[in-house]
Amino acid sequence: MSLLEQINTSEDIKKLSRAELPLLAKEIRNRIIDVVSKTGGHLASSLGAVELTLAIHYVFDLPRDTLIWDVGHQAYAHKLITGRNKSFDTLRQYKGISGFTKMKESPFDGFTVGHSSTSISAGLGICYAKYLNRDASDVISVIGDGSLTAGLAYEGLNQAGDLKRKQIVILNDNDMSISANVGALSSYLSRTLSARYLQNMRNQFGAFLKSLPKIGDDMYQIAKRWEDSFKTFVTPGMLFEAFNFDYFGPINGHNLDHLIDILTNIKNPDSPVLLHVTTIKGKGYAPAEKNPVYFHGVGSFAVDTGKSNKKADPVPSYTQVFGSHMVRFAKTNEKIVAVTAAMPEGTGLTQFSKEYKNRFIDVGIAEQHAVTFSAGLASKGIKPVVAIYSTFLQRAYDQILHDVCIDAHPVVFAIDRGGIVGEDGPTHHGLFDFSYLRSMPNMTIMSPMDENELARMLLTAINHDGPIALRYPRGKGQGVEIQAEVKPVEIGKAQVVTEGDDLMIIAIGQSVYEAMAAAKQLARKKIFAMVINARFVKPLDAQLFLEKAAKIKKIITVEEHMLAGGFGSAILEMYADNGMTDLEFKRIGIDNKFVEHGPQDLLKKDYGVDSSAIVAAGLALAGPDLTGFGTDGI
Amino acid sequence: MSLLEQINTSEDIKKLSRAELPLLAKEIRNRIIDVVSKTGGHLASSLGAVELTLAIHYVFDLPRDTLIWDVGHQAYAHKLITGRNKSFDTLRQYKGISGFTKMKESPFDGFTVGHSSTSISAGLGICYAKYLNRDASDVISVIGDGSLTAGLAYEGLNQAGDLKRKQIVILNDNDMSISANVGALSSYLSRTLSARYLQNMRNQFGAFLKSLPKIGDDMYQIAKRWEDSFKTFVTPGMLFEAFNFDYFGPINGHNLDHLIDILTNIKNPDSPVLLHVTTIKGKGYAPAEKNPVYFHGVGSFAVDTGKSNKKADPVPSYTQVFGSHMVRFAKTNEKIVAVTAAMPEGTGLTQFSKEYKNRFIDVGIAEQHAVTFSAGLASKGIKPVVAIYSTFLQRAYDQILHDVCIDAHPVVFAIDRGGIVGEDGPTHHGLFDFSYLRSMPNMTIMSPMDENELARMLLTAINHDGPIALRYPRGKGQGVEIQAEVKPVEIGKAQVVTEGDDLMIIAIGQSVYEAMAAAKQLARKKIFAMVINARFVKPLDAQLFLEKAAKIKKIITVEEHMLAGGFGSAILEMYADNGMTDLEFKRIGIDNKFVEHGPQDLLKKDYGVDSSAIVAAGLALAGPDLTGFGTDGI
Repeated sequence: MSLLEQINTSEDIKKLSRAELPLLAKEIRNRIIDVVSKTGGHLASSLGAVELTLAIHYVFDLPRDTLIWDVGHQAYAHKLITGRNKSFDTLRQYKGISGFTKMKESPFDGFTVGHSSTSISAGLGICYAKYLNRDASDVISVIGDGSLTAGLAYEGLNQAGDLKRKQIVILNDNDMSISANVGALSSYLSRTLSARYLQNMRNQFGAFLKSLPKIGDDMYQIAKRWEDSFKTFVTPGMLFEAFNFDYFGPINGHNLDHLIDILTNIKNPDSPVLLHVTTIKGKGYAPAEKNPVYFHGVGSFAVDTGKSNKKADPVPSYTQVFGSHMVRFAKTNEKIVAVTAAMPEGTGLTQFSKEYKNRFIDVGIAEQHAVTFSAGLASKGIKPVVAIYSTFLQRAYDQILHDVCIDAHPVVFAIDRGGIVGEDGPTHHGLFDFSYLRSMPNMTIMSPMDENELARMLLTAINHDGPIALRYPRGKGQGVEIQAEVKPVEIGKAQVVTEGDDLMIIAIGQSVYEAMAAAKQLARKKIFAMVINARFVKPLDAQLFLEKAAKIKKIITVEEHMLAGGFGSAILEMYADNGMTDLEFKRIGIDNKFVEHGPQDLLKKDYGVDSSAIVAAGLALAGPDLTGFGTDGI
Repeated sequence: MSLLEQINTSEDIKKLSRAELPLLAKEIRNRIIDVVSKTGGHLASSLGAVELTLAIHYVFDLPRDTLIWDVGHQAYAHKLITGRNKSFDTLRQYKGISGFTKMKESPFDGFTVGHSSTSISAGLGICYAKYLNRDASDVISVIGDGSLTAGLAYEGLNQAGDLKRKQIVILNDNDMSISANVGALSSYLSRTLSARYLQNMRNQFGAFLKSLPKIGDDMYQIAKRWEDSFKTFVTPGMLFEAFNFDYFGPINGHNLDHLIDILTNIKNPDSPVLLHVTTIKGKGYAPAEKNPVYFHGVGSFAVDTGKSNKKADPVPSYTQVFGSHMVRFAKTNEKIVAVTAAMPEGTGLTQFSKEYKNRFIDVGIAEQHAVTFSAGLASKGIKPVVAIYSTFLQRAYDQILHDVCIDAHPVVFAIDRGGIVGEDGPTHHGLFDFSYLRSMPNMTIMSPMDENELARMLLTAINHDGPIALRYPRGKGQGVEIQAEVKPVEIGKAQVVTEGDDLMIIAIGQSVYEAMAAAKQLARKKIFAMVINARFVKPLDAQLFLEKAAKIKKIITVEEHMLAGGFGSAILEMYADNGMTDLEFKRIGIDNKFVEHGPQDLLKKDYGVDSSAIVAAGLALAGPDLTGFGTDGI
């Protein structure tokens, strides 16, 4: 029986001798590599945090003490030693365990996460609750240097230093966010790190001072104060000390003995403590150490080579089509600037970043700033294209509304990962964007049915003089040919895709394909549906929709989005506002629940947003009772 | 002719001698005090920034150089010297000039603002655009120390230090946000300021070192390096230097000569520069210097005494009712904690903060953190009541969704200033909350029709085991009696307020009173409307609404909110989902535009959300054609 198999809970770690821990670390790494090579997942971060995980569990009394992993994607080792070794093969699989920490999954998961930079704030809240509840146990937040880029982390630090509760923050510093880390803070951390020579200098000078003959009290006092000052100055702690944190480190995050010793020392502090730990992303698996960006979030791969098992797909992803057209359009329009928030690869902008170095801006994990910065660019005639995943753009809600929409600055929002994203689960699905964007005056919202339309809409957006969003899904396109000459679409115009008289299916985005598939199936049952590709969520093509509804009274709307306030809701509003009252509706979308993780297709089926849901709705609306009515097509 | 009257544009300032500037400053202060004593407005911040404003206009070439005032509420002097002296009497008045900076109002206003902490991000965007446009002019962002608390400001700083453009940030440090400033950063700034004695020490020690006989090269080198290090360490610059800013200051922000000299020196820098200026909030007007919190945003007052002209109103405001009931409920429920983001007075929590010191948390201007912190509290059995204005809660969209709703933590959102807020205008109206909250699973949304219901809903919220929001307006209540025993309302239950058969008016929040007034007027025209107080935006009382609609087919919904995705939209969804198709609708709300500033009542009328709009809709729906139909009440 391996060591890992003997560990069911945090308590079992404490039973091991220190000497056994490195072996356990090795077993954990093997298990992680083995499973992730099949399931895909966040490999590199989790490999980098194995020793840190063991040390924390060894020293602290979990789950009485509360441990919060920022983002939660580095917590695979934590999952393995808290009762989830057996189920670990189901990582990120349908109905399996989550790729992030999740309170409902385990009492050892201190907070449910997925988005970055929440751990200090949430940890401080828990600290304060414990203080009010007279609970003396500890709270430990582990945050990566990349996550520190986001304002929320800073807001948490700032208040933590003010409330002065006994919070422990561990900075897991691997000089990376998802991609290479950016921002002054990052260079600051490396700068001060390499300034360790200054620390040596201090020691030398201290010795020198002590060797001096005493030149009166003044000198003595001054020297003493300087000694204290330098203690903070010559370490990266300077910054954190400014926030009233006691700073320790930097220490090697792969040295278990050191980790355990220092954690034991800082356990149960009187005031906020920051421990700076340096780790290597991908540690212990050569291909991941070599290419931590690729292995940040990875699909299945061959363990021996690190090579992806995915066969090259002739059909490009939406992300790729976006990226290649950004490069293409930027050639003839020098005003185009691409802005990403720590996701150059994920948003398909790698090529752009190489070809237009000056016109590519990675702001780090800082979505708020990405948007306000872009508003500034746009106010001076530049055309920013802000490429952010739908779920992360949520973090910039007010910046879109207040900084972009009020003055109608022409910022293009390229919203990737709109809809159900799959294995990343409830924290990552992009199911809210139509709803929150469409209440904003001056905003135009599009969603392409396929990759060809994506190219056209991107051009439309770049030509548009106002805030405009295009929202497209994760994953590969429909395999349609992209026209050599890309023509913009007309703003606010929908398109009839299939004719039919029994039923009108108005779909948006990729759901148009679900609607077409459903229409084919319905036709076999002699129900003939008109399928309309709405193209725009705002403004809607009211003219077309009203004209068609004059004849077709049964309407299905389809969107991969929450129903409340979404696309179908906009259609309802439009008909009601135009006094068209004799219509029957079925809105298809996600009904007021968070969507779990799993493969996109399975989830679409489970949550009722695939073609089968449309067929069912079509049958219910235009089925049995109506044989012989309005089926001219028979 | 006064000096001020001779100033039409920034250029005219430059024609003055330095000796004339203090007189101009005095005239400006008098003009500001005179006007604001009548119109109300942000007095204290604007008085504090008079010399800084003059110095910037004296040195820089505006508007070719771009000046951005963070928040924009300290820019009255700026307005007075950029062509808006004559119209300054219309400050914050209907159709008059804005209380904030606004690009559409003047080319001298570098960015449109209202919410805090955007100036560094927007300024950096403008800097970068100028770089791409080969425009060598300057960008100056003036930000208060309070605004630095927000994560967006930090995100901007972090990137500015990375991009290294020639941006000038002026930190206007008055040790205040709106209320007393909070956070470690604030105490850090004062700490290092008072540490000026350290600077003296440095000089002494430097002299001492120079007096020492040369003890070899080592000593000399070390001493020299230390000298360089100390330059940053003993000033507050340490923090900003960490972000790659060249730091200057702190200097007295009321000394025009010093300001002009240093601004001339830092003009057109090679890399980011931060100038730290200390000012006195309310400077030059004794009552405001004495009570800067009161005079931050003030109504009309008597200039000689500083006393408010407002007569004590026997009818309390919604804010007051909220505050007093927080105190009341906290007496018997020790789990209640109040959380505010720099608005203890504005949200009515002053009394609470005194009586329950440990259970009151002001996080500073940091709405994101306020919400995630509260999620942490709630996860450990505390009952946080987060009191934030509707418009500012927008900044925490993702924290509500990701940190509170996914795990359904029982956080209470007390959303003040919901609806049209009046004089603060488009950046401050709370017109989006129903829409963005109702798409979030697990969220319950209420809005009270009057102050009695506010008390009941607050109790309901505190008793509720899940995320729940209550949204109430700015200003005084309806004057109803508050029942001695506060009873919670039943979740998801609406209330029929007035019976009627011709028409159903479903209203939410304060709009119920508009609906009642409209119903009275309609009754005079023999149209009898049923008025329903919906109470809940989510969940809706579908049972009641369906039952009533079985008989009454004409429905008006009323909300002080955007129409797209709002309350009326939810009503449409509910009827459509229940297959009720034979209804006629008129949704009353704000139709896809930003609402300008002015008195609440006037704006309600202008934007069609008052009783007259309801009457018009009622007549259109149930008027002329229908005489004799369904008017059983005659």
